[in-house]
Amino acid sequence: MTFQIAILGASGYTGAELVRLIATHPDMTVAALSADRKAGMSMAQVFPFLRHLDLPALQKIEDIDFSRIDLCFCALPHGTSQAVIDTLPRNLKIVDLSAGFRLRDPQAYLKWYGEPHIHPHLQAEAVYGLTEFYRTQIAAARLVAGTGCNAATGQFALRPLIAAGVIDLDTIVIDLKAGVSGAGRAPKENLLHAELSGGTHTYSAGGKHRHLGEFDQEFSAIAGRPVLVQFTPHLLPMNRGILATVYVHGDPARVHQTLSDAYATEPFLQVLPYGSLPSTRDIAGSNFCHIGVTPDRIAGRAIVVAVLDNLNKGSSGQALQNANLMLGLPETTGLLLAPIFP
Amino acid sequence: MTFQIAILGASGYTGAELVRLIATHPDMTVAALSADRKAGMSMAQVFPFLRHLDLPALQKIEDIDFSRIDLCFCALPHGTSQAVIDTLPRNLKIVDLSAGFRLRDPQAYLKWYGEPHIHPHLQAEAVYGLTEFYRTQIAAARLVAGTGCNAATGQFALRPLIAAGVIDLDTIVIDLKAGVSGAGRAPKENLLHAELSGGTHTYSAGGKHRHLGEFDQEFSAIAGRPVLVQFTPHLLPMNRGILATVYVHGDPARVHQTLSDAYATEPFLQVLPYGSLPSTRDIAGSNFCHIGVTPDRIAGRAIVVAVLDNLNKGSSGQALQNANLMLGLPETTGLLLAPIFP
Amino acid sequence: MTFQIAILGASGYTGAELVRLIATHPDMTVAALSADRKAGMSMAQVFPFLRHLDLPALQKIEDIDFSRIDLCFCALPHGTSQAVIDTLPRNLKIVDLSAGFRLRDPQAYLKWYGEPHIHPHLQAEAVYGLTEFYRTQIAAARLVAGTGCNAATGQFALRPLIAAGVIDLDTIVIDLKAGVSGAGRAPKENLLHAELSGGTHTYSAGGKHRHLGEFDQEFSAIAGRPVLVQFTPHLLPMNRGILATVYVHGDPARVHQTLSDAYATEPFLQVLPYGSLPSTRDIAGSNFCHIGVTPDRIAGRAIVVAVLDNLNKGSSGQALQNANLMLGLPETTGLLLAPIFP
Amino acid sequence: MTFQIAILGASGYTGAELVRLIATHPDMTVAALSADRKAGMSMAQVFPFLRHLDLPALQKIEDIDFSRIDLCFCALPHGTSQAVIDTLPRNLKIVDLSAGFRLRDPQAYLKWYGEPHIHPHLQAEAVYGLTEFYRTQIAAARLVAGTGCNAATGQFALRPLIAAGVIDLDTIVIDLKAGVSGAGRAPKENLLHAELSGGTHTYSAGGKHRHLGEFDQEFSAIAGRPVLVQFTPHLLPMNRGILATVYVHGDPARVHQTLSDAYATEPFLQVLPYGSLPSTRDIAGSNFCHIGVTPDRIAGRAIVVAVLDNLNKGSSGQALQNANLMLGLPETTGLLLAPIFP
Repeated sequence: MTFQIAILGASGYTGAELVRLIATHPDMTVAALSADRKAGMSMAQVFPFLRHLDLPALQKIEDIDFSRIDLCFCALPHGTSQAVIDTLPRNLKIVDLSAGFRLRDPQAYLKWYGEPHIHPHLQAEAVYGLTEFYRTQIAAARLVAGTGCNAATGQFALRPLIAAGVIDLDTIVIDLKAGVSGAGRAPKENLLHAELSGGTHTYSAGGKHRHLGEFDQEFSAIAGRPVLVQFTPHLLPMNRGILATVYVHGDPARVHQTLSDAYATEPFLQVLPYGSLPSTRDIAGSNFCHIGVTPDRIAGRAIVVAVLDNLNKGSSGQALQNANLMLGLPETTGLLLAPIFP
Repeated sequence: MTFQIAILGASGYTGAELVRLIATHPDMTVAALSADRKAGMSMAQVFPFLRHLDLPALQKIEDIDFSRIDLCFCALPHGTSQAVIDTLPRNLKIVDLSAGFRLRDPQAYLKWYGEPHIHPHLQAEAVYGLTEFYRTQIAAARLVAGTGCNAATGQFALRPLIAAGVIDLDTIVIDLKAGVSGAGRAPKENLLHAELSGGTHTYSAGGKHRHLGEFDQEFSAIAGRPVLVQFTPHLLPMNRGILATVYVHGDPARVHQTLSDAYATEPFLQVLPYGSLPSTRDIAGSNFCHIGVTPDRIAGRAIVVAVLDNLNKGSSGQALQNANLMLGLPETTGLLLAPIFP
Repeated sequence: MTFQIAILGASGYTGAELVRLIATHPDMTVAALSADRKAGMSMAQVFPFLRHLDLPALQKIEDIDFSRIDLCFCALPHGTSQAVIDTLPRNLKIVDLSAGFRLRDPQAYLKWYGEPHIHPHLQAEAVYGLTEFYRTQIAAARLVAGTGCNAATGQFALRPLIAAGVIDLDTIVIDLKAGVSGAGRAPKENLLHAELSGGTHTYSAGGKHRHLGEFDQEFSAIAGRPVLVQFTPHLLPMNRGILATVYVHGDPARVHQTLSDAYATEPFLQVLPYGSLPSTRDIAGSNFCHIGVTPDRIAGRAIVVAVLDNLNKGSSGQALQNANLMLGLPETTGLLLAPIFP
Repeated sequence: MTFQIAILGASGYTGAELVRLIATHPDMTVAALSADRKAGMSMAQVFPFLRHLDLPALQKIEDIDFSRIDLCFCALPHGTSQAVIDTLPRNLKIVDLSAGFRLRDPQAYLKWYGEPHIHPHLQAEAVYGLTEFYRTQIAAARLVAGTGCNAATGQFALRPLIAAGVIDLDTIVIDLKAGVSGAGRAPKENLLHAELSGGTHTYSAGGKHRHLGEFDQEFSAIAGRPVLVQFTPHLLPMNRGILATVYVHGDPARVHQTLSDAYATEPFLQVLPYGSLPSTRDIAGSNFCHIGVTPDRIAGRAIVVAVLDNLNKGSSGQALQNANLMLGLPETTGLLLAPIFP
C-alpha cells in the first residue's frame, strides 16, 4: 500500500526537501501541500527544481481533506504549528518539524521561546524525535517533534558519552559551524549572498541560542543531574551542512570506543576510524551523520567532530525516518540516497 | 537479475558520480572499480562521501576479471581510454565517458585533439551517446561514446531547430557558463578555490574549445551542409552545472514550439513555458535538462537557454541512461532522483 | 584645501563604497551622511567594516546643512533622487548614482522606467557620467548622472568600435555576467545566499533590462542612426564584478587596434594584448577596466570581453572620478588603489 | 626619500599582497622582485591584477643587486628562507614572512618542523614580529620574523589576558576558522574549488598545527610557566580571513576591560563594545583586527572572538607595519586602507 502524505508549509526549504525525498520513496505519495500565502500556485512555480514531479497544487490548510491523509508533516513556524496541530484530526499521525514541541517542560519553553506554549497538552503528548534514541516511543506516537538541527548534531556527538560517564560534564564546549539554509527562505539582509559569502561570524553566542533548551533537557535527563554546555554557533558561507566541534575532558580512546559501540548497528550514524575527522561535504544531501574523534595533545582531552546535513538528517530526513517508524515501514526506506559530491 | 558493473577510472568525479547513481539503481551492482595509482585503496579513502556503501576496493585494470562483468564504464583520459578499450573482451558492453570516440572522422579527431586516433576501427564502431537522438543505435551498440558536457547542452538547445530549419545557420552564438567540476580533480593552480571563487573568466574562447568538434559533426550532419557556430565558454564559481545561452535568428514562437514538440515525450528534457528561462540550481545533482526560450526585443531573434548538470546529464547520468538502453532496461531506471536545492 | 563631501543614501552598497574610497582620498572629507530610516545611527552600526573611520552620524537629508558642502553624491533610488535633487541648493555640485538622469529623452525615460520623469528640467541639465567620453562636459557640470554599471561595461567595449565604423551595427550581442552586489542591499528572496550561491541564471533577458535605454541612447548618437543591440544579463554567485562578452562582426585585429588606440592614454582602461581575455578577479575593488579581444574561428568575427567592478568603476569609483573633474582635481586622485586578489 | 624594496618569492599570495600594499605606500618603491621558476616573466603575467603597475620583472635571487636595496621582504618557504637569508648582505634589513625564524628555541623548532634549523645564529638574532608587542625590538632589528597568521589571531585575543592574570591558564580553547588563501597558491587536490566550496572540515586538529609552537613560546613567556592551549583549525570556503573563537575561564567583563585597556591606543586593534562579536567580512583586505567579548551563560566564562585578514594583518600587512618601524617611518604608513565590503 502507498501512504498518503500531507506537507503543511511546503514553500520553505524543509518542505521542499521532504518533497524531494518522498519523490523516490516507494511507499509514500504526496497527496496534499499547503502554503497559505502561495495557495493556488504550483510547486513548480515556487520550487522549479521539482517541476518534473506530478504534485498537487498548493492550498490553504483549511482546504485539505485530512480524511484521506495517513501522515502529515508540519513544516510551519513554531507558533503557527502549535495552533494548527490542535485543529488536526486526532487519528492523524503528525511529524512536526518546528520548535513547537521539542521542550517537554512548559517553563523551559517559556524561557527559551519567550512566550507560554499555546497547547501544553500537545506539548506533553509529543515525543522528542531524535530517532536513534527514541525509536520505541516514536513508533507508537501520534505526534513527534522534530529536533533542532544543531541540537541533533551535538547530541549525536555527546549522548553516548554522557550516558557512559566517560567525560566531565562541566567543561563541555560545542563550537558549531552551520550552513545558511537552516535560517530559512524568508528574505533578510544578513542572509543575502553579498553579506554572507566569503566570510564568517558567530550568532546567538554566549548561551542565547534556543537549541540550548534541547541540550539542557536531554543531557540533564541522561546524566540525572543538571548539565550546562557552552555552545557557540557560527554562520558559514555554505548552503547545507553543520559541523560541531565538541571539546570534552575524558580519555580519547574511550570516547571513540564508546561512540563506536553505541552506533555500531546504526545505518545512518557512521563513526570514522580513531584520529580521523569528518567534512560536511561528505554528507551533503543525505541522511548520514559522520562522527570522528581525535585525541588532543593535552592528555585526557578529546575532540569529537560530528557533521550532518541540516535540511536532511537535521530536519526533513529525520522527519521521514520518524514517519517510516510511525507507519510501520523499515526505518531506512527512501533515505539511503548517497550524498552528493562535489 | 542484477547486472555486474565495472567502472574504470573511479577516482575522478565522473567515476564517483557513477557510483553514487548506481548505489540506488535497482538492477545494477558495482562489481569492480579501477584506479591505477590508487589501486589497493578503498573508495571511502578516495571519496569519503561514499563510505556508507559496500564497494569493491580499487584495483588495477589488468587485475579485473572481466568475464563476470556485464557492462563497463570507462572514465579514463581520452588517450588512455583508446588504449584500454582495445584490450577489453569483445563481448563486453562499454560506455566510454572520455573524448576518445566522440568524433567519427579521423581527420576531425586529429584536428581537435592534436594527434591521430590510436584505434580508428574502434572510432568507427562507436555510437555517439546523445541518448535522445541515438536511441536505436545505442541500444544495439557494443561501444558508446559519451558526449562532451558542453556539447550535450548546446545540442539539446539546437538540434531540433536545425533539423526543422527554423533558424539561420550562419549566425548561431553559444555563450556557455560552466561549473568547475567539469575540469576534473587533478590539481591545477587555476582551479584552486582562491583563484576561482568570486569571479569569472572565459576559456578556450574564439573557437578553440574541443567540443566544437562535436558541434561541427552533429550540426553539419543534421543540416546536410557545413554549420559553424560561435562558442565561448566561461568558468563560473560553482561546482555543478552548465548554462548555455544560445542566440539564434528565427521566429521565437516557432523556436519554442519546435523544441516543445520535439521533447514533448522526453522524460529528462523539460521545455519551460514560453518566455521563461531556467537556472542551473534547478537541475543540480539530477539527469534533467531544462530549456527555455524568450523572444528578443529585435524581431526575428530568439534566445534559447539550456541548463544541465555537467557531471550527471552531461556525463555520468547520460552514461547510465545509455547503459540502461544497452542492457534492455527501462531508460529512466535509477535516474529519476530529484535535483538538490538549495 | 579639503573639499567637504555629503553622501545621500549612505546605507547602501554604493554609499559605503564611496566612504571607503574617500577614506584615503587626500583632498576630500566626508562631512555629512544621510540615511532616512537609519538616521541617528553611526556608520559603524550599519557598516562595521568602516568602524575605524571618524565619520559623521547618519542623519535625515533635511537636517543636513548644505551650505558647508562642496559636492554631494546622491546614492538614492532613482525616483527619490529626482525629488531630492530638485530641493538641493543650485550652487551645489551633484553626482547622482541612480538611474534618475541617465536618459536625456523624456520619452525614453518613460519607456524604460514606466513613469514620466518628475523633473525634466534636471534631466535636460544632467551630463551623462561616462567619464572617459564626457570629460569636458563633466568638468563644467553642476549635475552629473552616473551610468548603469552594465551600461558602462558594454560601452567601454563598443563605443570606439562604433565610432570608427569597424563593426556591423545590426549583429551586436552583449552577453553579460554580473555579480550580486549590483542588486543592492534590500532583502529579497532571490538574492539570498541559499538561492544564489553555486548556480547561475539570466535576468531581464530578451531586451527588458533598463540599461538598454543607455545603450540605445549612446550607440545611436555615436552612429548617427538607430542601433539596437541584443543584451542578456546573467546573475553569478560572486559579489563584485561584471564581465561582458561582446560578439561583433568585424575584423578582429582592427577591433583590437581600434580599442588599443582609443584607450592608449587612459589610466583606468587597460587593453590586454591581442588574443588575451580578462577576468573579473583582476579588477575587484578597483577603478580599473580590463578589455580583451580575440578573433573567432569564423573569419570576420571578434569577441570583445570587458570587465569592471560594478560597485567601483561601474558606480562609486566612476562617481568619484567625475567628482574629481568637477572639483578641478587630477582625475585619478584617490582612485589608484590596486585591485584585491585573491 | 623613497626606500628601495625587494620582495623575494613574489609569485605567491603574500608576495603579491606586499606589492598591492606598497603600490600606494608613499615612501617605498618596489625595486626588485624574485621568483626563481618564473624568472623573466613580468608580474602582470603571474598576477594580472597588478598589470596597471610599473614593476620590475621577476628575476632570480642571485641576479638581484642588493646594494641598492634598503629593505627586503622574504616570502619564501621556510627552509629556503633560512638558506637564502644567510647569504644576504649583513647591512640589509629583512622582514621574513615564513616560519623560518619564529621559534627562538632550536629544540622547539626541531619538534614542530621536523628538522634542525639550518642557521641557529640567525634564529637567535631574529625578533618575533608581532608588532604591537615587540615594537622596540623590531625598530632596532635587522631580521624580523613574521608570525603565523593563526598565531597572530590567537595572540591578539589572549596576550593581555594572560599578562593580566584574568583567565585560567589550563582551560584555554582556540577554535579557529581560516580562509583558504593561507594555504598558498601551490596546486593541491584538497584546495580545489570543487573540493572546498560549500563545506568545511578541520585540519591539523588535536594539537598538530605548527602555530602551536608560537602559542607555547609566547604564552609561556608571558605567564612565566608552561601554558598549553587547545587549538583546532577549520578550513572554510572563503578566500581571506581568520576568525578565532577563544573560550576562557575568567570574569567576562574583566576580560573585556583588559583587552579594551590594552588596545586603547592601538590603531589597528579594535575592541568592539561588550557583548558584540566581529565578522571576518569587516576586515577583509585590511590591516585591522576586530576583537569582541561576550559572557557565556555559565558564570565565570567568556568567549573572545578575534578576526583578521590572514594575507594582510596576518602576514603582509604585519610585515609592512614592521618594515615601517625598521625604516623609521610612522607605523601606519600605507596601511590605513579601508577593508573591502561586500
